[in-house]
Amino acid sequence: MSTRRAPAARWSAGLAVGALTIGVGSGLVAPASAAEDHTHNGGAARLSGDQTQAIRDSIVDGPAKNVILIIGDGMGDSEITVARNYAEGAGGTFAGIDALPLTGSYTTWAVDEDGSPNYASESASTATAWSTGTKTVNGRLGVDVDNAAQSTLLEIAKANGRKTGNVSTAEIQDATPGAQVSHISQRGCYGPEETSAKCADEALESGGLGSISEQLLNLRPDVTLGGGAASFSQSAKAGPWEGETLFTQAEQRGYQLVNDLDGLDAVTAADQSRPLLGLFTDGNFPVRWQGPQATIGGGDQAAQQCRENPERLNTGLSLRSLTSKAVDLLDNNDGFFLQVEGASIDKQDHAADACGQIGETVDLDEAVQAALDFAKADGDTLVIVTADHAHTSQIVGSTPPGLSARLQTDEGQSMIVSYGTAPAGGSQQHTGSQVRIAAYGPGGANVVGLTDQTDVFFTSIGALQLNRDLAALSADASITSSADEVAPGEEFTVSVQNLKADWTTEATAGEADLGQKDVIDGSVDYTVTAPAEPGEIAVAVTGSQTDTSLSVPVVVTDGAGGGAGPGGDDGQDDGGASPAPSDKGGSLPMTGATITLLLLLVAATAIAAGTAIARHRRHGITV
Amino acid sequence: MSTRRAPAARWSAGLAVGALTIGVGSGLVAPASAAEDHTHNGGAARLSGDQTQAIRDSIVDGPAKNVILIIGDGMGDSEITVARNYAEGAGGTFAGIDALPLTGSYTTWAVDEDGSPNYASESASTATAWSTGTKTVNGRLGVDVDNAAQSTLLEIAKANGRKTGNVSTAEIQDATPGAQVSHISQRGCYGPEETSAKCADEALESGGLGSISEQLLNLRPDVTLGGGAASFSQSAKAGPWEGETLFTQAEQRGYQLVNDLDGLDAVTAADQSRPLLGLFTDGNFPVRWQGPQATIGGGDQAAQQCRENPERLNTGLSLRSLTSKAVDLLDNNDGFFLQVEGASIDKQDHAADACGQIGETVDLDEAVQAALDFAKADGDTLVIVTADHAHTSQIVGSTPPGLSARLQTDEGQSMIVSYGTAPAGGSQQHTGSQVRIAAYGPGGANVVGLTDQTDVFFTSIGALQLNRDLAALSADASITSSADEVAPGEEFTVSVQNLKADWTTEATAGEADLGQKDVIDGSVDYTVTAPAEPGEIAVAVTGSQTDTSLSVPVVVTDGAGGGAGPGGDDGQDDGGASPAPSDKGGSLPMTGATITLLLLLVAATAIAAGTAIARHRRHGITV
Repeated sequence: MSTRRAPAARWSAGLAVGALTIGVGSGLVAPASAAEDHTHNGGAARLSGDQTQAIRDSIVDGPAKNVILIIGDGMGDSEITVARNYAEGAGGTFAGIDALPLTGSYTTWAVDEDGSPNYASESASTATAWSTGTKTVNGRLGVDVDNAAQSTLLEIAKANGRKTGNVSTAEIQDATPGAQVSHISQRGCYGPEETSAKCADEALESGGLGSISEQLLNLRPDVTLGGGAASFSQSAKAGPWEGETLFTQAEQRGYQLVNDLDGLDAVTAADQSRPLLGLFTDGNFPVRWQGPQATIGGGDQAAQQCRENPERLNTGLSLRSLTSKAVDLLDNNDGFFLQVEGASIDKQDHAADACGQIGETVDLDEAVQAALDFAKADGDTLVIVTADHAHTSQIVGSTPPGLSARLQTDEGQSMIVSYGTAPAGGSQQHTGSQVRIAAYGPGGANVVGLTDQTDVFFTSIGALQLNRDLAALSADASITSSADEVAPGEEFTVSVQNLKADWTTEATAGEADLGQKDVIDGSVDYTVTAPAEPGEIAVAVTGSQTDTSLSVPVVVTDGAGGGAGPGGDDGQDDGGASPAPSDKGGSLPMTGATITLLLLLVAATAIAAGTAIARHRRHGITV
Repeated sequence: MSTRRAPAARWSAGLAVGALTIGVGSGLVAPASAAEDHTHNGGAARLSGDQTQAIRDSIVDGPAKNVILIIGDGMGDSEITVARNYAEGAGGTFAGIDALPLTGSYTTWAVDEDGSPNYASESASTATAWSTGTKTVNGRLGVDVDNAAQSTLLEIAKANGRKTGNVSTAEIQDATPGAQVSHISQRGCYGPEETSAKCADEALESGGLGSISEQLLNLRPDVTLGGGAASFSQSAKAGPWEGETLFTQAEQRGYQLVNDLDGLDAVTAADQSRPLLGLFTDGNFPVRWQGPQATIGGGDQAAQQCRENPERLNTGLSLRSLTSKAVDLLDNNDGFFLQVEGASIDKQDHAADACGQIGETVDLDEAVQAALDFAKADGDTLVIVTADHAHTSQIVGSTPPGLSARLQTDEGQSMIVSYGTAPAGGSQQHTGSQVRIAAYGPGGANVVGLTDQTDVFFTSIGALQLNRDLAALSADASITSSADEVAPGEEFTVSVQNLKADWTTEATAGEADLGQKDVIDGSVDYTVTAPAEPGEIAVAVTGSQTDTSLSVPVVVTDGAGGGAGPGGDDGQDDGGASPAPSDKGGSLPMTGATITLLLLLVAATAIAAGTAIARHRRHGITV
C-alpha cells in the first residue's frame, strides 16, 4: 500500500527472511547467497540453514505465567496469504504472524442441536470451543449443546487469581470476545433490549444471567477494550441497577470508563478494584484499509491499490496499541490471561472487500508483534495466534465466475482475489477448512500437528496451571463479622474472603435481603445494621457463580457495643481503592435464634469437574 | 463411504484420538473421559495431555538415510478437511496424513518470465521449486526463469549414490513426477511427438535433451511407477534409438518393464543395472471414488454418498501398494530418495468432483501410512508430506451461487462442497494459499513454521547430506583400457569408473564416434576394435550431464596382442546382471599418434555450485 511504504525494490524485498526470529540454524544447507534474487537457486528459501536446533530451542515446557491468545477472525491460511502477498510480498514475512516458531493446524467444526457434527461453523461456536473446551451449536456463547454454561478461560483464570483482559476491534459483545465473558444461547443478545427480545428466558427479568454486556460487567475482567458502546446505553430491566444504563451501572461498580485515546492514556492501572472498560466506538471499529469492492468480472478490471480508510481510529487505538496497553495494565507477579481479536478480517471477507480484510490482517499482525515483543522480554508468556474458522477469499490466476477483485500489491504485482460462496450483495460464507495455529513460549508445542479448537482451552489451562474446579477455589472462603455482639441498630460489617470463583454475591441477614455485591479479589463486605430487637441472626453470603454459601452468627444484645468479634480483623485487602458497591439491601430486621458459624459449601457436593459445577450452578436458569 | 466401512456409531467415532502416534503426554491437562462424546467438555480434544515432550522427542537431527517425499497434488488444507470430514469424521484422524508430528505451512508462488512473483502457481512450477530449490515460470519443469536446467533432488541423490524412485497416480510425465526427471520449458512435452510440436528446440532432433519420457530413460531412476504408458509407444526421432519406440529403447537399455500387478509382483530387485519402469495405464490412473458432479444448486440436492469407481485399478496397484513396493525395492545400505504423488486430488478438484478428490486423498493417506510404517521401523527415514498448491474446494454451510455438491459423509452428516473459481464445464482453478507441510524423522523440524516450497529441496539435500556439486562428483572418475598396446583389428575395452553424476556418455576413439552409452553405478564400458594400421589413438569418454571428459591412449602395434594395460583390471562391478547396452558406435578407424593419459575435467573450470554447472552444460540447448 503506497501510503504505508514505498513499493519494494524490484524483487529484492520478498526474500529469504528466516521465519524464525528466535534463532537460526547453522547455515549448512541453503546457499549463503540466498538473499539476492528470488529467481536464483535458493533465492526464495525462507530458512537460512538447518533449523532443527532452533525449533528444539523454541520448545519450552510450561507452566507459563501469562497467556496471550490472539484470534484473527476468519483468518484462514488463504486470508493470511492474500494479506502477505499484498503487504509483504509473496516471499515476504509478517513480522508477527509468521514469526511464531511452532505451528500446526486445528479443526473448527461445530455441532448441531442433536450433537452431530456441523462442518460449517461460525464465530460463536468456534470461540466457545477454545474458551470452554466444549463444542457447541452455531450462534451460542459459553454454553454447550444442552445450553448448559461452560466455564471460560477468562473466568477460570480470574478465579485462579490471574489478571484478565479482553480486547477486540469488534463490538465487545461480538462472538469472540463475548465467548470469554458470557453464557447465552444467542450471540446477538448484546444488551438488555436484545436479550428481552431474543433470549427472553436468559434475561435478568426472567432470572437469567442477563445480556452479554451485563454478564461482562458481572465478570469484571481487569481490562476490556473494544467497540460496542451502544449496548451500554441500554438500561437494565431487572436487578440492582434496574432502570439505569449499563454505563451508569459500570461506573457504580467501580469501572474506569474511557471512550477515546486521551482517556485511555490517562489510565495507569487497572485491577479488580478499578477495572478498565474502554469502548471506543458504538459498533465495530472502522477498518484500516479500503479498496475495490469485489464484483462479477472484477478480476478483469485494472488492478487497484488499497487506501487508508479516513475513518480509521487514531493509531493509538489500533489493535497493536490496545494490545500493548492491555499487556502493560495486566502484567503482574501472578500472571494474566489476555484474549485479543482482530475481528474484521472476517467481516470484510463476508463483504467481499479484499483491501478491508488485508488491512485488518496487517493490523492483527502488528498486535502479534506487540505480544511477541512482550513475550520475548518477559520470557514466561505463551502467545497463541490462530483463527476461529476459515473464510471465502481465494487467490486465483484468472477471473472466476463469481465476485472478484484485482489488486496491485505493494511489490507491484497483480493479484486476483475470488469470493465465490455468495452472490453479489450477499454475505460470503465461512468455510470449514482446518486453519493454522501458531505459538511462542512455554507450552507452545501443544499447537504442533493436528489439534482441535477445543485443545486451545486445555493448552491454556495447562500452561497457566489453572484449577478448573471453581467450587473448590471458592471453598477456601471464610466469613467474618466485625463484631460477634452488637447493639440493636448498630452498624457492623460482614466480610467474606477468598471467594475466588465468584464474581458477585447475594446475601441475607436473617430474613432480610442484603442484595447483590461485587466480589473484589475474592472479598466482599456487607455493612449491616443490627435490628432493633435483641436476639441472634445469621448473616449469609452466597457466591452467585459457585453457590458457595457462608454464614456468620451475630448476637444483638443491649449490652454490646463496638467490640471486635472473632473475625474482627476482616483482613480485607482492597488497597484503598475500593469501589462504591451498590448498597441496595441495607438494614434489616433480625431473627432471634443463635446459630453457630456455618460454612455451607453447597457446591461441594457436586463432582469436582468444573463443567459439572458450572452446569449445576446454572441449571434451570440459562436453559 | 458405505463400501469402505460401516458408518460410525453415533458421534462416538469422531473423538479425541491423539494426533501423535509417536507418543503422548502425561495426561495432565485434558480430562481422562475425553473420548466418550464429542459434545462433552474435552470430548473433541485431539490431545490427551501436554504433548511438549512428545513433540520434543519427535525432533531428530539429520542426517537421514532415506527421504520419502509425498505430494498430494492440490491437497490444500481445505481438501484435507473435506476428505477427513467425509471419510474419518470431523473429529476423526487420518492415520497417515494427520499422524506426522511436525507441521508447518509453506508458500507456493511461482514467477513470471520477468522474474516477478506470480501468486497463482501450478504443478510444474511448484514441483520444480522443491525438486530444484529454484522458483520458475508456470508450466516449466526443472528449469529456471531463464530456462536454464536446475539439478533435481532425484538427480543429485542418484549422483550421490542413493537409490531413487518416482511414483505417481498420474502419467509419469505429469508435472510432479516430471519435475524430478526432466528439464523442459513446457510440461506437456511428454514424448517425442509433443516435443517436436511444442518444444521443438528441446527435441532430440534439435540437439536438445528430448522429451520428458526420453529424459526419464536417460536418468534411469531405480524405480519408476505410474501411468503414462501411451507416450512410450512413440518413437524417438533422433539419437541412438531413432525410429524405435521408447518401450523398445527402455528394454534395450536394461529396464524391467511391467504393466500389471502380476508383472510388478514378479519384480524382486531393481537397481541401476535393472531399473524398474512400471506403467500401468496409458494415461492417469482411474480414480478410486465417484460421486455427484458439482452443479449450480447442487448443495440443495439430497446428500449423496461416494461410490467405488468400478474402473479403479487392482488395489495391488494402489498408491499404498506402489509406495510399499517402491520402498521395498529401494531400501539399501546407502539410502534412497523416493517421491510419491497422489495426483488426482488436483485433477478431481479441477473437475469439481468432490468424491473423486476425497477418494484420492484417502488413497494418499494410505500411501503416507505405508511410508510411516517403513520409516518408524527403519528409524532413519525422513518422511515429508505436503501439497504443491492449494485448490478450489471449500466447505460451506449453505448452497453457494457457483457449483456445489452435497455429500452424506461416513458419519451420516451433510457436507456442502463449493467449487467457485470456474463455471460449469470449466476447470476449477488452483488457489494461491499457503499449504500444510508435515514431516516425521531426522531433519523433519525443517518444515515447522513458515517455509517456502523451495526449502524442501534444501531440507532434503541437508537430510541426505548430498553433495550438490555434480561436476565434483564426477571428477573422481577414472578411465582404463584393457590393453595399452593392441594388435590392429583387435578388440579391447575402455572402462570408466566413478562417473557418478553422469547418466550417459558419448565417446570417441580418434576421429571415430563410439556413440552413447548408459552409465551404470558410475561405470561405463566401450568395446573398441583397433584400427588396421599401427599407431596411437586416444579413446575419449565424456559424461553427457557434467561434460566430464576422460581419455586413455592406446598403442596399435603389430607386436601387441591381448596384454592387460595399466588399467587392465577394469574393476567394473555390474554384479552379473549387466544390461545389454546398445552398441551403436563399435569398431573404428584409428589415428596414429601416442597420447599420454588425459583426464580432462572440462566442467572443473566451472564454479562449484551445481546450479552453475547445470546451466553451463546445457546452455544453448534447452533455451
